[in-house]
Amino acid sequence: MDDPVLLTGASGRVGQAILDGIGDDYDWRLLDREPPTGDTDHEFVVADVTDEAAVRDAVEGVGAIVHLAGDPRPEAPWESVLRNNIDGTQTILEAAVDEDIERFAFASSNHAVAHFETDREPDLYREHDDFRLDGTELPRPGNLYGVSKASGEVLGRYYHDEHDLSFAAVRIGNLTEGHPPIDYERGQAMWLSPRDCAHLFDCCLSADYGYEIVYGISDNDRKYYSLERAREVLGYDPEDNSAEWDGDEKVA
Amino acid sequence: MDDPVLLTGASGRVGQAILDGIGDDYDWRLLDREPPTGDTDHEFVVADVTDEAAVRDAVEGVGAIVHLAGDPRPEAPWESVLRNNIDGTQTILEAAVDEDIERFAFASSNHAVAHFETDREPDLYREHDDFRLDGTELPRPGNLYGVSKASGEVLGRYYHDEHDLSFAAVRIGNLTEGHPPIDYERGQAMWLSPRDCAHLFDCCLSADYGYEIVYGISDNDRKYYSLERAREVLGYDPEDNSAEWDGDEKVA
Repeated sequence: MDDPVLLTGASGRVGQAILDGIGDDYDWRLLDREPPTGDTDHEFVVADVTDEAAVRDAVEGVGAIVHLAGDPRPEAPWESVLRNNIDGTQTILEAAVDEDIERFAFASSNHAVAHFETDREPDLYREHDDFRLDGTELPRPGNLYGVSKASGEVLGRYYHDEHDLSFAAVRIGNLTEGHPPIDYERGQAMWLSPRDCAHLFDCCLSADYGYEIVYGISDNDRKYYSLERAREVLGYDPEDNSAEWDGDEKVA
Repeated sequence: MDDPVLLTGASGRVGQAILDGIGDDYDWRLLDREPPTGDTDHEFVVADVTDEAAVRDAVEGVGAIVHLAGDPRPEAPWESVLRNNIDGTQTILEAAVDEDIERFAFASSNHAVAHFETDREPDLYREHDDFRLDGTELPRPGNLYGVSKASGEVLGRYYHDEHDLSFAAVRIGNLTEGHPPIDYERGQAMWLSPRDCAHLFDCCLSADYGYEIVYGISDNDRKYYSLERAREVLGYDPEDNSAEWDGDEKVA
């Protein structure tokens, strides 16, 4: 991709994992509500995604968007996810189609489907269990943050169908640095290593697709999210697996 | 049901069809943004569903809610459906679970799935075609109004899973009075007669269910919405069929 890629929420954990992994592979335009804390090698726009004029400026001239910005707190109050996550996503999608952007990767979340775990835990988190979500299921959010992410997926569907925007929603699992979560089976089942995270968004920026909902996890032995669509359609080929770790030590 | 039933958006077309059909069968508390234009036999609250305090007052002491209120225009702008439809539905759902309401019937819409028609029309609207949507499919809204209705369904899923509220989303087709739409195949395929409409919401107020998405149409020969879940779970037994009409005349 020759045109710049807009990365919103660039200073967050997912944004940093993406930049650490594929920062040199694209011409980035970063956007965050807060100014960068250190030096940055890339163009940086300080703006709120609910500020339509600023969003339109930020979108101008880019070829693709990775939209991570939003209130990331699972316990965020409704008024905040309504404004920052639902309205913010609509604002940037509307700007994207007006600007004829080709590809839009959206940070959805495991919280959009967390209530599938009800009555299935802890077996669900263990290797022997073969229950899988594959992205074709209707959402079952575990909180209002999850509702906002599921609504973002619906918005993406509309903009894809109506305006032919390629839209990939990545239901991100549990991104942790250094090692998988310790003593937390759920987190190990949905672990996404930083390098697999960067690779998955790289796939979203380069593959050909229409509308996809995929799960963003590493190739963990424990898992209840299918990686099939991500592998088949996006070419995702994860390198990590939480089972290769014993606490904070890599053993395999 | 002995406790009153709150009917929001009572003065709209769907609300009037419900009251015409089953107005005598429940103790209604009506709510609308506009005062009633004529006499009403029922308690009437003038309030906006985005007014949290008013909504909490209106919900107090009711046993069930039929939530129709919202901006009903398919072409409604985003800011209006965001506030009136998405935020308004969350406001009343939150009040409902705080008040331990048992059942919540939600007016969803055919617009939540309208893009399934793309590339399938006009065959989809004809008797020979056996394509069916059954409510298990992910939404494909045809407009931002449809996005707001799909988001309301997701909100209902969350409040059902988290708070055990029985929630039925009715994807309402094309409700017309007197006769089915004329010279409009799509409208004939998704026709919902006023008496079938009233009966379907009656079912939502009396059946036992957890979370359901059903289609609200009459038993039309032309159809691409399945009535199976509505029949099986809610006991819906429609009397009308747009094929029994020739223009504005009933012929069968």
